[in-house]
Amino acid sequence: MKKPNIAVLGATGVVGQEILKILVESDFPYNSIKFLASARSAGKQIEFKGQMHTIEEAKPEAFDGLNIVLASAGGATSKAFAPEIVKRGAVLVDNSSAFRMDEDVPLVIAGVNDDDLKKHKGIVANPNCSTSQLMLPLKPLHEYGNIKRMIVSTYQAVSGAGKDGIDDLIDGTKAFYDGTSYENRKFTTHPIVFNLIPQIDVFVENDYTKEEMKVVNETRKILHLSDDVKISCTAVRVPVHTSHSEAVSIEFEREITPEKAREILSNAYGVEVMDDPASAKYPTPVYAAGKDPVYVGRIRKDLALDNGLAMWVVADNLRIGAALNTVRLARKLAEMGLC
Amino acid sequence: MKKPNIAVLGATGVVGQEILKILVESDFPYNSIKFLASARSAGKQIEFKGQMHTIEEAKPEAFDGLNIVLASAGGATSKAFAPEIVKRGAVLVDNSSAFRMDEDVPLVIAGVNDDDLKKHKGIVANPNCSTSQLMLPLKPLHEYGNIKRMIVSTYQAVSGAGKDGIDDLIDGTKAFYDGTSYENRKFTTHPIVFNLIPQIDVFVENDYTKEEMKVVNETRKILHLSDDVKISCTAVRVPVHTSHSEAVSIEFEREITPEKAREILSNAYGVEVMDDPASAKYPTPVYAAGKDPVYVGRIRKDLALDNGLAMWVVADNLRIGAALNTVRLARKLAEMGLC
Repeated sequence: MKKPNIAVLGATGVVGQEILKILVESDFPYNSIKFLASARSAGKQIEFKGQMHTIEEAKPEAFDGLNIVLASAGGATSKAFAPEIVKRGAVLVDNSSAFRMDEDVPLVIAGVNDDDLKKHKGIVANPNCSTSQLMLPLKPLHEYGNIKRMIVSTYQAVSGAGKDGIDDLIDGTKAFYDGTSYENRKFTTHPIVFNLIPQIDVFVENDYTKEEMKVVNETRKILHLSDDVKISCTAVRVPVHTSHSEAVSIEFEREITPEKAREILSNAYGVEVMDDPASAKYPTPVYAAGKDPVYVGRIRKDLALDNGLAMWVVADNLRIGAALNTVRLARKLAEMGLC
Repeated sequence: MKKPNIAVLGATGVVGQEILKILVESDFPYNSIKFLASARSAGKQIEFKGQMHTIEEAKPEAFDGLNIVLASAGGATSKAFAPEIVKRGAVLVDNSSAFRMDEDVPLVIAGVNDDDLKKHKGIVANPNCSTSQLMLPLKPLHEYGNIKRMIVSTYQAVSGAGKDGIDDLIDGTKAFYDGTSYENRKFTTHPIVFNLIPQIDVFVENDYTKEEMKVVNETRKILHLSDDVKISCTAVRVPVHTSHSEAVSIEFEREITPEKAREILSNAYGVEVMDDPASAKYPTPVYAAGKDPVYVGRIRKDLALDNGLAMWVVADNLRIGAALNTVRLARKLAEMGLC
C-alpha cells in the first residue's frame, strides 16, 4: 500500500478534532499530513502527535500534491473546493451532505459497501450520522432476511449540531442552576435544556425534516434497496452530549428470530451486541461515547410487524457517525489503490 | 349531581400533589374532602385551598362514609385497601397498575370510553401515563379509519418515576457541574444525567418491559381493539423533568390524509393540534408541562406503512398521564351517578 499525502480540512471543528484523534489512535499510515481551515483559523497552531503544526488556509493551491482530503468543514466549503481537489488528483472524503445523493458520488460505510468506492470520480461521501450507525447492523441482517419495511425513531445528541449544540446544552443547563438566563438560540428555535426538539435540520415538502429523509434516502443508496422497501423516520434532538440512539422496527421478508439476530450481529463488522435484559444490560449514549462500535441491544420480536425485529442502536455520533468512518474510508481508498 | 365525599390517598406524593392542584383548578364539586397517607405521613399538615389540613392515616375506618377515593399511593397500598374501600361502598379511582388489566375493572380515559365506567364494581383504573396521552388523539382517528397497526417510541420524563426520578435528574445534573459525585441509583440501574435509559419498569418474558406491554395491552382494552390489531412499543427514559413525548406510526384500514387527521384532531376532546413546520411549531415537553391538553404535531404521512400516519404526541405525564384523568374520572362518576 502506497502511503498517501493527506490533509484534514476543517481541522478545528468538533468533527475535525475527532478525525485527528482517530488518525492517531488507528495509527493511520500517511506519507505527509497537513491541516487546513478557513482564513479565520489559518495561522493558528494545532497539536498533533505531540507536535505543533500551523494551520494553512484552505485555498486551491493548498491541495497540490495531495492524495486524500478528509473534509468536515460544512457543505458550502466542500462544494467550493471539490473541483479544485478533484482537478489536482486528490480524493475528497466529504462529511457534508453536499454530494451524498449525487449519482456519481459513492456514499459508503466502510465494511458495508466498500465496493462502491471503486466507482468514485474524485469524491466519496460519508453518510449522515443517523444513517451511518444503522448501516453496520442493518447490512448483515438485510443479507439474511431482506428488509421490506423500517421505522426509525432517533434520539440524537447535541454534538451532532457542532459546538453551538453543545453550548446550548451545557451552558444552557448551567444557567438553569445558576438562575441566570441563557439565550438558547444558537442551533435551534427551541431550548434543549431538559427538553426535546422534534426537528433536526429544515423541513422539506412532505413535512419530514431533511434529517429524516436522509435516513430514508441514504439507507436506500448504501444498501442498494429498491423503492419497494418502505422507510420512515422521526428525528428528535435530546439533551445528551454525545452518541445518537435509535429505536428501530424492521419487517423482513424472511423471519429473523431475536436469537438469530443476536448471532448475526455478534459476528458483524463494527457491531457489538449488548443485550441482557435480566442484568439491565443494553447500550446507553453515555456508555457508547468515545467508543468505536455500534452497540445493539433490546433485540426482540417486533410485535407490530410481520417477521418483525425491534432493536435499540447506540453509537458515538462523532465517531462512526462522522470521523471514524471518514478515516476508515481514507484507509480503504489507500488499501484498494483508489487514491 | 350529588356532591361526593372524597378522599385523596397518597396526598403527599408527586401525583397526589398534582391531584390537589387540579381539584382546586377545576373547582371540583365535593361535599367533604380528606387527605390520607401512610402512617409515616399521618399527622402532618397539608395545605389545600388556603387552609391547613391534618393528614389522616390510611386505615380501613378512614374510608367510612366516602363516595370516591382518588388513590396514587402505589400498587401495594391500592391492593391492600381496595376491599375495604369497596366494602364501604366507595369507588376507588386507582392510579396504580394493580387492577388495570382485571376484567372486572374498567380502564378509562375520560372522554374516550366513559361508558365503561358503568360496568365498575367498586374499582376504576387510571391507565398508565404513556398509554393515557395516546388515547385522546387515537380515539377519534380510530373511529374514522380503524387502526390496524401501531408502533410507538416513547421519550419519557423522569417525573414518571416520582421523586426519586426527579432527584436523579436534577441533583445528578447539578453534581455534574459541581464536579462532585452523585450516586445515581435511586430509580434506575443507569445514570440519567445527559443520558437515555431504554428500560422503564422490569422486563417480561418476551424481552419487552412492563411499561412497553402496558401501551400494547391497555390501548387494546381502552379502545376495545381486537387481537388482530398489532402494536409494539419501545419505552425510553429521557433527561426531561416533565411531559412524556411519543413518536407514533399508525397504519389504518382507511386512508387518513394529514389534512384530515389535523381536522379530526382539531375537534377532538382534550387534544390540541400544534403543527406548523414552517414556523417550527410543534410540541415540546417543556411547553406541555403544567398544561392540560395532549399536544399533537409533526402530523404527516408515514412513509413505511399503508394508509400510514406519523405524529408526535406530547403531554404532561403528571396531568393527563395521572392526576388530571383521575380527577376527570371522579367527576364523571359523580355526574353519571355511579358513586
